[in-house]
Amino acid sequence: MATVVSSVADICRSAKLASRTLARLDSGVKDAALEAIAVALEERLEEILQANERDMQAGRENEIGDALLDRLRLDERRIRAIAGAVRQIAALADPVGELIDGRRLPNGLDVRKVRVPLGVVAVVYEARPNVTIDAASLCLKSGNAIVLRGSSSAEHSNAALAQIASEAAVAVGLPQGCVSLVAGGGREELAELATQKDSVDLIIPRGGEGLKEALQAVATVPVIYAASGNCHVYVDAAAALDQAEAIVLNSKIQRPGVCNAAETLLVHDDVAPQFVPRIVDALQSAGVLVRADERTLALVRDAGGPAAALLQAAVEEDWAKEYLAMTLAVRVVDTAQEAIEHIARYGSGHSEAIVTRDTAAARAFQLGVDAACVYVNASTRFTDGGEFGMGAEIGNSTQKLHVRGPIGLRELCTFKYLVEGDGHVRA
Amino acid sequence: MATVVSSVADICRSAKLASRTLARLDSGVKDAALEAIAVALEERLEEILQANERDMQAGRENEIGDALLDRLRLDERRIRAIAGAVRQIAALADPVGELIDGRRLPNGLDVRKVRVPLGVVAVVYEARPNVTIDAASLCLKSGNAIVLRGSSSAEHSNAALAQIASEAAVAVGLPQGCVSLVAGGGREELAELATQKDSVDLIIPRGGEGLKEALQAVATVPVIYAASGNCHVYVDAAAALDQAEAIVLNSKIQRPGVCNAAETLLVHDDVAPQFVPRIVDALQSAGVLVRADERTLALVRDAGGPAAALLQAAVEEDWAKEYLAMTLAVRVVDTAQEAIEHIARYGSGHSEAIVTRDTAAARAFQLGVDAACVYVNASTRFTDGGEFGMGAEIGNSTQKLHVRGPIGLRELCTFKYLVEGDGHVRA
Repeated sequence: MATVVSSVADICRSAKLASRTLARLDSGVKDAALEAIAVALEERLEEILQANERDMQAGRENEIGDALLDRLRLDERRIRAIAGAVRQIAALADPVGELIDGRRLPNGLDVRKVRVPLGVVAVVYEARPNVTIDAASLCLKSGNAIVLRGSSSAEHSNAALAQIASEAAVAVGLPQGCVSLVAGGGREELAELATQKDSVDLIIPRGGEGLKEALQAVATVPVIYAASGNCHVYVDAAAALDQAEAIVLNSKIQRPGVCNAAETLLVHDDVAPQFVPRIVDALQSAGVLVRADERTLALVRDAGGPAAALLQAAVEEDWAKEYLAMTLAVRVVDTAQEAIEHIARYGSGHSEAIVTRDTAAARAFQLGVDAACVYVNASTRFTDGGEFGMGAEIGNSTQKLHVRGPIGLRELCTFKYLVEGDGHVRA
Repeated sequence: MATVVSSVADICRSAKLASRTLARLDSGVKDAALEAIAVALEERLEEILQANERDMQAGRENEIGDALLDRLRLDERRIRAIAGAVRQIAALADPVGELIDGRRLPNGLDVRKVRVPLGVVAVVYEARPNVTIDAASLCLKSGNAIVLRGSSSAEHSNAALAQIASEAAVAVGLPQGCVSLVAGGGREELAELATQKDSVDLIIPRGGEGLKEALQAVATVPVIYAASGNCHVYVDAAAALDQAEAIVLNSKIQRPGVCNAAETLLVHDDVAPQFVPRIVDALQSAGVLVRADERTLALVRDAGGPAAALLQAAVEEDWAKEYLAMTLAVRVVDTAQEAIEHIARYGSGHSEAIVTRDTAAARAFQLGVDAACVYVNASTRFTDGGEFGMGAEIGNSTQKLHVRGPIGLRELCTFKYLVEGDGHVRA
């Protein structure tokens, strides 16, 4: 049970045992468990609100600030939204058992490559208590047991949510240990969790750079690091400039604090005299601070008006920075190739966009840019499991092994080869 | 060039640069480079033999032993076989650009998930110099640059082979740095290589446990560890016993020193009185040392004859041991479920086989056993990239992330999402 205090190693071993049962469950049983969790969240609303109030009170006493308090806060509307998200995950296709590939070998052996759960997934996360349920639902749907480790600031909320999820799932036939929460938000628990390589198959950290560094220093369990995104929009010589303006603005300001927001705009020299003053003006009107290279500065000055006074000169560090704020670096380049080189040097391999009407430029950009998602004539903001039709995601990966981009249900799986013969032996 | 002495970091940076060109090459160019390598190996045979003789001489002086000397030795036949393997890899389908998945999103965006090279793959290997060319061919075919780090005992052979491959590839248009060899087989070079995470995308070690442990202690670059295989054959109550005998013998003795050879035989109690004396006799006749649990011991004693005297009693450690030798542990179990539990406890997740005529037992085994390859009525020895129709392999993975089982051309790739719109922005 989620609230029994056990050692991290015990929790993980129990999760491993549960995972072996989970891997064999039919979709219907898993979906019934998710529905039971959604119902339990709605029925035990008061209990959740009381636990959350204890965290909120501690947060106010510790003066964690309004932004963090808002992330921590649960209310009836938010809890119903969490239950709704569980039902949406239940409605997705089961990735387990999906046939990925298969053939009959020349010797008559039938080989099928079939998707199976990873086993035990540990999710390490910060303030938002809704992650407790989102992550648990994604893991159970994909046949994995989950070990949660939240932050101490959301201790009571997370404990209540994990206990409700665990009880509801077990009540409809899922194994004990399918959902557990590691008590204590300290670095020792993190290190202990990150070294249970006999029982934990994957750790997914959802948090800032401090959490990643702490994990990198100690983890022996495989880790998929959620992305940092230094994303670019490149406006090509052959861009439709109205589209370019809309895409740049959307990529930067639609939600500036997330990893798929653009951080640098690159503009081809041919269209820069027209486009740069116009986009700088539009960005500044929307409240974006522009860090400009020398050619951008000169173009804006030449255009006259008040925009130049608001510009800041970009320094080398700007090209590598993920602002996650209403700031955009702008640079003029001579060729599409120079844009590709810039992205190779400074990009983080997350989401990169070209705006162009030229098929050759589009093709060169998609071939030459090494990133999880490479867009032609679309905003970088679409990099998202929901948008991509994967239903939901547990984060975004910028690494190249196993998963790149959104981490959805399929990405929480591995595969096995099922091979069938009739007494076949190797010659 | 392969023989210029550069720092490991310089070599890796140069490989990274080369990888950006390699990723964009058409299949025809890559295949022409592989053909050029095969031709160069044949034409520069004498050079290779002379380099190899220097290593052989040093090996004899250092008394490395006949087995290692044989692994080290190149002769005309072996070099022609290496060239033949290069041509076989050239003939395989190019994994790069392969469409993995795709759809049109409700908003009209077209999303394609397309296979692309990883970038730079480092291969760390021991005595056999043929790995230099095998690994380079697989990496170039899959659009990756390769950084090789062989053992000091094969120093001159590896340097000659890497230089020939590099020169031949560059001569037909592949970029400088596409094939390089790290000079020096020391642990410092290994540690330096394993921490070039800005330029190396993956390290594949091919060697013993010592190499793995050395890497695990220092690597910040992602590593795919080649497998150790503690593989089982389970002979079910409903097994066809002739098939069972053939499969057990093939799994154990067809090539006992490799990771997909069987190390433990599990026999259902219902057929044990018939099958155990018979298979123990056959195994012993073939020169296999049998380590038997108590029930096996009793059955063989009851059957009479000389077999019992040759049996050894199995101890707890036997169940976890990868003998890689003509030794097999044997245990009698009461149910298929007990066999599955035994494999879950002691198996290494490599290759597991059930011999049965019962569809329910076969299904339970394939669902319940968590391993890269799960066989029904076939030998564990089929786990191999060549056998599976993947053309060739660079090793076998028992980990669950990215690749499980044979590591072939596709597994040396990652993917990216190519997304195309017409001015699409996120609402």
